Amino acid sequence: MKPNFSLRLRIFNLNCWGIPYLSKHRGDRVKRLGDFLNMESFDLALLEEVWSEQDFQYLRQKLLPTYPASHYFRSGVIGSGLCVFSKHPIQEITQHVYTLNGYPYMIHHGDWFCGKAVGLLVLHLSGLVLNVYVTHLHAEYNRQKDIYLAHRVAQAWELAQFIHHTSKKADVVLLCGDLNLHPKDLGCRLLKEWTGLHDAYLETRDFKGSEEGCTMVPENCYVNQRELQPFPFGIRIDYVLYKAVSGFYISCKTLRTTTGRDPHSGTPLSDHEALMATLCVRHSPPQHTPSPTHGPAERSRLISVLKEAWAELDLGMAQARWWATFAGYVIGLGLLLLALLCALAAGGGVREVAIMLWAPSVGLLLGAGAVYLFHMQEAKGLSRARAELQHMLGRAREAHDLDPESQAALFLGQQEGDRSEEQ
Amino acid sequence: MKPNFSLRLRIFNLNCWGIPYLSKHRGDRVKRLGDFLNMESFDLALLEEVWSEQDFQYLRQKLLPTYPASHYFRSGVIGSGLCVFSKHPIQEITQHVYTLNGYPYMIHHGDWFCGKAVGLLVLHLSGLVLNVYVTHLHAEYNRQKDIYLAHRVAQAWELAQFIHHTSKKADVVLLCGDLNLHPKDLGCRLLKEWTGLHDAYLETRDFKGSEEGCTMVPENCYVNQRELQPFPFGIRIDYVLYKAVSGFYISCKTLRTTTGRDPHSGTPLSDHEALMATLCVRHSPPQHTPSPTHGPAERSRLISVLKEAWAELDLGMAQARWWATFAGYVIGLGLLLLALLCALAAGGGVREVAIMLWAPSVGLLLGAGAVYLFHMQEAKGLSRARAELQHMLGRAREAHDLDPESQAALFLGQQEGDRSEEQ
Repeated sequence: MKPNFSLRLRIFNLNCWGIPYLSKHRGDRVKRLGDFLNMESFDLALLEEVWSEQDFQYLRQKLLPTYPASHYFRSGVIGSGLCVFSKHPIQEITQHVYTLNGYPYMIHHGDWFCGKAVGLLVLHLSGLVLNVYVTHLHAEYNRQKDIYLAHRVAQAWELAQFIHHTSKKADVVLLCGDLNLHPKDLGCRLLKEWTGLHDAYLETRDFKGSEEGCTMVPENCYVNQRELQPFPFGIRIDYVLYKAVSGFYISCKTLRTTTGRDPHSGTPLSDHEALMATLCVRHSPPQHTPSPTHGPAERSRLISVLKEAWAELDLGMAQARWWATFAGYVIGLGLLLLALLCALAAGGGVREVAIMLWAPSVGLLLGAGAVYLFHMQEAKGLSRARAELQHMLGRAREAHDLDPESQAALFLGQQEGDRSEEQ
Repeated sequence: MKPNFSLRLRIFNLNCWGIPYLSKHRGDRVKRLGDFLNMESFDLALLEEVWSEQDFQYLRQKLLPTYPASHYFRSGVIGSGLCVFSKHPIQEITQHVYTLNGYPYMIHHGDWFCGKAVGLLVLHLSGLVLNVYVTHLHAEYNRQKDIYLAHRVAQAWELAQFIHHTSKKADVVLLCGDLNLHPKDLGCRLLKEWTGLHDAYLETRDFKGSEEGCTMVPENCYVNQRELQPFPFGIRIDYVLYKAVSGFYISCKTLRTTTGRDPHSGTPLSDHEALMATLCVRHSPPQHTPSPTHGPAERSRLISVLKEAWAELDLGMAQARWWATFAGYVIGLGLLLLALLCALAAGGGVREVAIMLWAPSVGLLLGAGAVYLFHMQEAKGLSRARAELQHMLGRAREAHDLDPESQAALFLGQQEGDRSEEQ
C-alpha cells in the first residue's frame, strides 16, 4: 500500500418500505430505486425492508452491470428484509439473527415473523479489509409505553457484540441501517460506546438534506403524520456509522439525505429518507493522534451506559418472568377445568355442555403452554444479554481507576445481579 | 514475549448428561465431577448438558477457589446446557444460538427446547489471545434415517462460520464439545475444512483411554447398549479441536479419556467419556513450515465438502418446503370445514354435531398454521446456510486452479442452485 494511499467510498442506505400488498406504489418505487442506483453507481447500496425476494431478484437483474455482487439475507418466516448490492466482489458473507425480536402474538406488528438480523460482508479493497454491516432493529410503535424496549436494547447489545467480535482484523468497519433508535436512546449509546463507531451525521462538515439529519420527515407523503407530531422536524433513526482501526483514518467527506421526495421525480422512494455518504479512508497522518477510546472519560461513559442497559434488561426479565408465571397459572386452571369437564361428562346431566367445553379448554391449555414457553425463552435471552453486560461491566470497572465513592455506588447498583450470576 | 515462550494448557471436556429428573444419579455425579475438577486443577473445564442452572451454581461455588472464572450460557426455553470454568480470567464472552435445531413437535427428543448454541470465551494468557469455543450440536437419534441431518449440517456450518469470523485476531483457537458427529461425517469434515482445526485425537502421539478414542463406549453402564450395537468399540462424537495462527505452533502432548468409569470410584461421571488434553503452545520454530491450508489439495477437499453440504441442505430445503406446502393444504381444508360447519350450525338438523366439531376445526387450523410458519422458517434458515455455502464455493472455485473437466463437473453440480441465488 502506498504511503499516500487514499480510498473513497460512496455508500447508499435506504429502508425501502417494501411490504407486499401493504406498502403504497411498491413496484414503481422499486423500479425508480433501481434506476437511481444504476445512475449514481455507488460503491455499496445497503437496503432494508426488501421483504419480497422477488423485489430483490428484480433489483439484482437490473443492477447487475453496475453492482455485480449482491446478497439477500434470509431469516425468520418472512425474511430479514436486508440486502446489499456491491460494485466490488464480496469476499465473505455471514449473518446473525437476533435472539429476541418481539412477540409472535403481536401479529399486527409483525416484527417477530421477520427474523430481524445483522448481515456482514467482508470486502477487500486496495489491500484494505472492510467489514460492512447492515441491520434493522425492532420497530418502536409507542415511544411513551414501549413494550419492546428491552428487546431493542438486547438487539443493540447483540449487534455491538457481533461487530466487536467479528471485526477484530478489519481495517475499516461500516454499519448502515435502520436502528429504530433516536441518537440519544440507550441502545444507540450502548452500540456506539461498545464498538467505538462514529456517526457520519455528527462527524461530517458537509451535510445537505433534511433538518437535523432526520430520516423520517413530515414532508414525506408516505409518513404517518400523527406519529411524527411530537417531532416537528421528524426523527433520525437510520444511520451510517463507521470507524477505522489504528494506522488508518476515516472521515465522512459529504453526507446527503433525500428530503421527503425522490431527487428526480418528486414522489419519495420510501417512507424513510435515503442516506448517501462519501467516506474517505487514508493512512493516519504521523501527527494525527486519534481520540483515546479507552481513556478514563470514555470508560466512565461506557460503565454508565452498561449499567443503564443492565437495569433495562433486568426490568424486561422481570416482565418476561411475570408472563411466564401467569401462563403457568392459566395452565394449572386449564388442567383443573379439563378434569372437571371429564367428571361432568361421565356423570350425565350437563354432559353435552361438558363435551362442548372440552375442546376450548384444550385450546386454552395449549395456548397458555405456548405463551409460557415463549416467555421462558424471552427471559433466557434477556438473562444472557444481562450476564454478558455484567461481565463487561466487571472488566470495565477493573480497568477504570475508580474513586471509593463511585466504586460504592457501582457496587450497590450491581448487587441485585450478583445474586445468581457470573464470576 | 520471550523467544523460548511456551504455554501449557490442561483442558477438560465432558457432556455431563445432567437432565433433571431423568438422568440417573445426577446429584452424585455432579458432586464427584466437582471433586475431580478441583483435584485435577485444569486450566479450563468445558461442560455440556448441564441443563439445570442449580447444578451450575453448585459447581460454581464448589470450584470457586480453583476456577475463579465461570460462565453459564443461557438460551432457548431450557438453556444451552453449556458452561465453563476457568483458572484464568475471562476477558470477553459471547454466544451464538443456532438458527435451526430440530422440531418443536418432536417433544420426546427435546433438542428444539434447548436452544443449542456455541459459546465463546476470549482469554489473554502470557500475552497470547486464546479463543475458546464450547458447543453441543443436535443429537442423532437414528443414523439410518436421520431426519435432523440437514439441521446438523447447517449447525456445523454456522459453527464454522462463527469460529472463522470471530477468531481472526486470535493466536490460538480451541473448540471443545459434543458435536454429535462421527469423525468422517459431513458436518465434521465441513467444520475442519472450513476452519482448519486439528483433531487432538488424530494429532497426539500420547493417547490413553478408550478404544479408538471413543467417547460413548459400551462399557459405560449409563449407555443404551442397543444403540451402540453397530459400533463394537463405541462412537467418537466429543472432540478437542485446535489451531494456532502463523507465528505460533500448537501440539497435543497428551490426550486421555475415561473408559466407562470414574478414574477413582468406578461409577462413570456421565454417559459420555471425559476428554483430558494437555496442549502446548510455542513460537513456531524457524525451520517449521506449517502444512499449507490453502494449497490445491486442501482447496479441492474444501470444494468437495462444500458441494456435499450444499446438496444436503438443498435436500433439507425441499423437505421443509414440502411440509410447509402440506400444512398450507391442511389450512385450506380446515377453512373449508369451518365454513361448512357454520352453514350446518345455522341450518339446524345436525346443529349440535356442527357446534361440537367447530372447536377441533379451529384447533386443526391453528396447528396447521404453526406447522406452516415453522417450516417456512426452517426453509429460510436452510436457504441462508446454502447461500453462504454457495458463495464460498464460488470463491474457492475462483481461487482453485481447476482443469476444464472438473470445472464442468462443478458447474453442472451447481446449476440447480444458481436459479434463485447469489451473484
